Amino acid sequence: MRYSLLLLAMAASLPLQAKTLSLKSPNGEIELRVSDDDAPHYAVLFHGKPVIGASKLGFDFTNAANFRGGFDITDSQRATVDSSWEQPWGEARIIEDKHNELVVSFTHPDSKQAYKVRFRAFDDGVGFRYEVNANTPLNIGRELTEFAIEDADKAEAWWIPGRGWNRYEYLYQHSKLADAALVQTPFTLKNKDGVHIAIHEAALVDYAAMTLNQRRPGTFVAELTPWSDGVAVKTNGTFNTPWRTLHIAPNATGLINSHLILNLNEPNQLGDVSWVEPGKYVGIWWGMHINKNTWGSGSQHGATTAETKKYLRFAADNGFDGVLVEGWNIGWDGDWFHNGDLFSFTKPFADFDIKAIADYGREVGARLIGHHETSGSVSNYRKQWDGAFSLYQKMGVAQVKTGYVADGGNIKRIDENGLERFEWHDGQFMVGEYLDNVKTAAKYQISINTHEPIKDTGLRRTYPNWLAREGARGQEYNAWGNPPNPPEHIAMLSFTRMLAGPMDFTPGIFDMSFNGLGDNTNRPQSTLAKQLALYVVLYSPIQMAADLPENYLKRPDAFQFIKDVPTDWEQSIALDGAVGDFVVMARKERKARQYSGNDWYLGAVTDENARDVTVKLDFLEPGKTFEAQIYQDGKDAEWKWRPYEMDIKKQTVRKGDTLSLHLAEGGGAAVRLKAL
Amino acid sequence: MRYSLLLLAMAASLPLQAKTLSLKSPNGEIELRVSDDDAPHYAVLFHGKPVIGASKLGFDFTNAANFRGGFDITDSQRATVDSSWEQPWGEARIIEDKHNELVVSFTHPDSKQAYKVRFRAFDDGVGFRYEVNANTPLNIGRELTEFAIEDADKAEAWWIPGRGWNRYEYLYQHSKLADAALVQTPFTLKNKDGVHIAIHEAALVDYAAMTLNQRRPGTFVAELTPWSDGVAVKTNGTFNTPWRTLHIAPNATGLINSHLILNLNEPNQLGDVSWVEPGKYVGIWWGMHINKNTWGSGSQHGATTAETKKYLRFAADNGFDGVLVEGWNIGWDGDWFHNGDLFSFTKPFADFDIKAIADYGREVGARLIGHHETSGSVSNYRKQWDGAFSLYQKMGVAQVKTGYVADGGNIKRIDENGLERFEWHDGQFMVGEYLDNVKTAAKYQISINTHEPIKDTGLRRTYPNWLAREGARGQEYNAWGNPPNPPEHIAMLSFTRMLAGPMDFTPGIFDMSFNGLGDNTNRPQSTLAKQLALYVVLYSPIQMAADLPENYLKRPDAFQFIKDVPTDWEQSIALDGAVGDFVVMARKERKARQYSGNDWYLGAVTDENARDVTVKLDFLEPGKTFEAQIYQDGKDAEWKWRPYEMDIKKQTVRKGDTLSLHLAEGGGAAVRLKAL
Repeated sequence: MRYSLLLLAMAASLPLQAKTLSLKSPNGEIELRVSDDDAPHYAVLFHGKPVIGASKLGFDFTNAANFRGGFDITDSQRATVDSSWEQPWGEARIIEDKHNELVVSFTHPDSKQAYKVRFRAFDDGVGFRYEVNANTPLNIGRELTEFAIEDADKAEAWWIPGRGWNRYEYLYQHSKLADAALVQTPFTLKNKDGVHIAIHEAALVDYAAMTLNQRRPGTFVAELTPWSDGVAVKTNGTFNTPWRTLHIAPNATGLINSHLILNLNEPNQLGDVSWVEPGKYVGIWWGMHINKNTWGSGSQHGATTAETKKYLRFAADNGFDGVLVEGWNIGWDGDWFHNGDLFSFTKPFADFDIKAIADYGREVGARLIGHHETSGSVSNYRKQWDGAFSLYQKMGVAQVKTGYVADGGNIKRIDENGLERFEWHDGQFMVGEYLDNVKTAAKYQISINTHEPIKDTGLRRTYPNWLAREGARGQEYNAWGNPPNPPEHIAMLSFTRMLAGPMDFTPGIFDMSFNGLGDNTNRPQSTLAKQLALYVVLYSPIQMAADLPENYLKRPDAFQFIKDVPTDWEQSIALDGAVGDFVVMARKERKARQYSGNDWYLGAVTDENARDVTVKLDFLEPGKTFEAQIYQDGKDAEWKWRPYEMDIKKQTVRKGDTLSLHLAEGGGAAVRLKAL
Repeated sequence: MRYSLLLLAMAASLPLQAKTLSLKSPNGEIELRVSDDDAPHYAVLFHGKPVIGASKLGFDFTNAANFRGGFDITDSQRATVDSSWEQPWGEARIIEDKHNELVVSFTHPDSKQAYKVRFRAFDDGVGFRYEVNANTPLNIGRELTEFAIEDADKAEAWWIPGRGWNRYEYLYQHSKLADAALVQTPFTLKNKDGVHIAIHEAALVDYAAMTLNQRRPGTFVAELTPWSDGVAVKTNGTFNTPWRTLHIAPNATGLINSHLILNLNEPNQLGDVSWVEPGKYVGIWWGMHINKNTWGSGSQHGATTAETKKYLRFAADNGFDGVLVEGWNIGWDGDWFHNGDLFSFTKPFADFDIKAIADYGREVGARLIGHHETSGSVSNYRKQWDGAFSLYQKMGVAQVKTGYVADGGNIKRIDENGLERFEWHDGQFMVGEYLDNVKTAAKYQISINTHEPIKDTGLRRTYPNWLAREGARGQEYNAWGNPPNPPEHIAMLSFTRMLAGPMDFTPGIFDMSFNGLGDNTNRPQSTLAKQLALYVVLYSPIQMAADLPENYLKRPDAFQFIKDVPTDWEQSIALDGAVGDFVVMARKERKARQYSGNDWYLGAVTDENARDVTVKLDFLEPGKTFEAQIYQDGKDAEWKWRPYEMDIKKQTVRKGDTLSLHLAEGGGAAVRLKAL
């Protein structure tokens, strides 16, 4: 008896043998391995070859012992899910969620501290999150999650800087992986076998955003954006981190043809969201960016009652749902950039009769779209936002564009002691502030389009009134950016920023020459056809026709495409493309036309190189005939001097046919496949 | 009466008018302007032209109101200093300190918070530091000091990344200023008028190191390296920051011909430092880097009694003062890189008889140089260091090389609760730890040569036993670096790293072919003559002859220069050069030779381009004759395949003569001007 007790005692004191657990995707092509050998870590294989090497897990806390080495795998649980769910609006209606799950418990043999990591393997990628249940508040100093890229010295990447003054508004760099130091997510890379990987996160709630810092060559470590007091994340001890996600695909388009981010988000918490309406809009906006109008009062004031009524008329006449009006409220006349406290969110300028406008809108059938520019003074906004949303609700406003124009790290809040604190747009504080704004708006049945936002991590699933956001260099940079967005920009965004979620890019500029044509002025570095293609290539439930109405009236032929194209989709397919080079998208409209069924749309864009793309129409429904209405660059078109030359042709097509599309330098093509 | 009281009352409540104060350098060429208009800021002009535009001052605290806008200049005081002082050792004996000083008091009219900024303008640059006297502890979250470079879009810069895993050990980048995102200091830039500026700091004590982050284009903001809990600097409320320094010169050599950093440091606090001895050394070190020996025990163990005695003999025979021995102590046999706790600083390996070695050294007249590698486990070192220094003192060791090999952010300390905390090499914690190490060593009359150090900020003035440090990519990278240091590296260091203080580069590799010649292997990318030039070009009070003794014995002709060259100087002059291209240094030995006077030495190095330099010997004393012993690249020499071809010639020279030196690709020249 004693002898066996002794043996038992000895066994209990021996260190547990290192364990490795395996989790495969439903189709078996992706494998996750999780191990506690030396320190908790994971690795990922694709078709049996490592793509992510041994990558550590863990945290350094500021007020407790760290989760570093020494933790053992003490338990694991598995699950398999094969389901689908329906979006109230989106790039697709039905989303399939098929994954295998592994929840691993790590425990420290001495301190008994424990945490879990939940891993999910999908056919299009993996995600994992930490789940901590401590009985004491834990402040995270540093998250230790690594992404160790295999064969890093042969990989290339597309990225923007991780903690810049200009937030997410940078041109994407294409470089050897080695040259990416501190980067934002989504972070896209391609290894020597052509495997494309994008690192991002899903369900960023009550936590700091993750950027990635290349520490040892090829190993990227999570770098959390800190509070003004330096702490990364403040928790009460019981928390789940956001999901750390890896899109994994054998080619570029596979990154786009994925619902990884949405599938890792919580279901809709708002209940009935029939009041959330995708649509198209115009607005008193571009005129200010090209210096025709001012936000502030004066003879060039854009946001006047008369002008807004003109826009509402134009919107109604042309099938647009709303008119965004910027510069309507008190505050624009001062030094608002340095002092957002000047803004009132309830008091209009004297020449903006919001009630008359609301009445007129109701009369003609187009709504005012609201605008709340905070200039980073978020406490000033928060204390007014209930009143502001209430006012808008009374005025029939169903959608608000918010703004947080301020340098990175310069969001101003007033703390509990009445002192000013300066935070990052993507620190834990603002992550909460943006979401509170959306939740508050929902109480008033108002949807939100956030500019200068937190990155998209799929929360539109949980809060479907969070329609869209900016979070990249949009059309405005073509008005005054130094430099404007180059021709490759859209093909860059498609495989990086757009993997996160919809973008309010505000496409559709028809007049490229407000500063003169050529390649040395501020203007969209694009052809006219490419501007049309954007409505299909860049997904957003709300799309602006961004130019001045007069420019659309000058080109009714091109404008027709904008009038036709929907913004809500049954299905979307990335057909072809390469990161930063070109992309071809196909989308099926969600709302079936009576008697004929659903149209399809194609959009194709290229970079500074002309390109001829062949689109095989094998995604069309068999037995149906479509009229392809093709808007493509003229044979001599190119973006610098001849952007307007566009051919519009029609042809009948069926499933299996091929369309050849010519894309000029900086060009594109847009096609409506009208169901007959 | 009432009326005037009313006026008085009104005046008192009116905001103070914006003030601007001016401070000029003694020769009037540099002007500092300090203003409280909008927010406290400064600017710098050179020859009447702005070089630094309006640059903010201030702090964000985590536990008090910020020092941002709204502070007024409420007082100022001026002083003029014209003095000189003597270094116990250095690149020059007599240092002139001529400056004008302005101390500005800033006060907030409402909160009454106040702080001072002390500005000093020298002919070779400016420095300023904050002086805070609050009666409550203040934790700094962010320092707001800016350096706004005028005409930034036309400027170029030379830099290394500011917070990399490899600390300071990066190749210098040369780029447009716009492409420098987060950088270390010294940070060197050149504007369109050829004005060279280097941003750095002096007297970094009890504070976090400053890196620079380019926020708005052209504006660099101080970015302090944080503690593991995220706070940048913890103070008791009464503190001076380090001096923020700007070397300003009309050309590249002007940056080197400056004592700005030393002049801003406090005088010697150690008293009699006659026990601090500059000199030259050899060591059991390179053999491990080229894989001939091991640090750990075994048949190739470098640090044996027999081998050390051989080196001591060689050192004594050739005029070297000491022998560095690495791998002498218990700890090297385990996984020391991941666990520095394995190191004992008092227990030698069995095959290293430290007493026998000490006795032998005393016998032949050369000392053992100690080695304390911590591998970043600083608590393990601290608890042993008194015993370790005491042992060394008994063994006649007068100098110790310390090491902190660990990735940036991975210095491990044990906190007051017994928990592991991971800190940066250049956070406030380690700034204190490195200095405590030096102060402790002084108690045992031991000097310190710190590897993987905190950057040099001139504290050798205050603690003259802090002889040298690494803090850049040194010779070891030529053994195994990926890649090795390229030919331009020395000309880069001279105008960047070397502005901070001495570097233990460990020059003098004579055998370039241990992995084969050519340009595709690990080897010094240098000619033999350039290796000699390093002894003059890169200042250090302790210089190693880094190669294996056998390689010196094979080239007694070249070795003669190393035997002759001193390491302590009366005077140093940068004669010519351009950042990253080439540099020509002249130095006058400090110790006069009996009967003949002081020799001068010249060193010149070039990058990958061959270069012929003309040196006008107008710095020589009039009326004296010198024998120039010239060691220069042979006419067909070049670093890749013909590095060894060297011409040695002698000629008589006097003041005013000219020497023409041919520098091969990757080459150099070394000259002893022997006083006759």
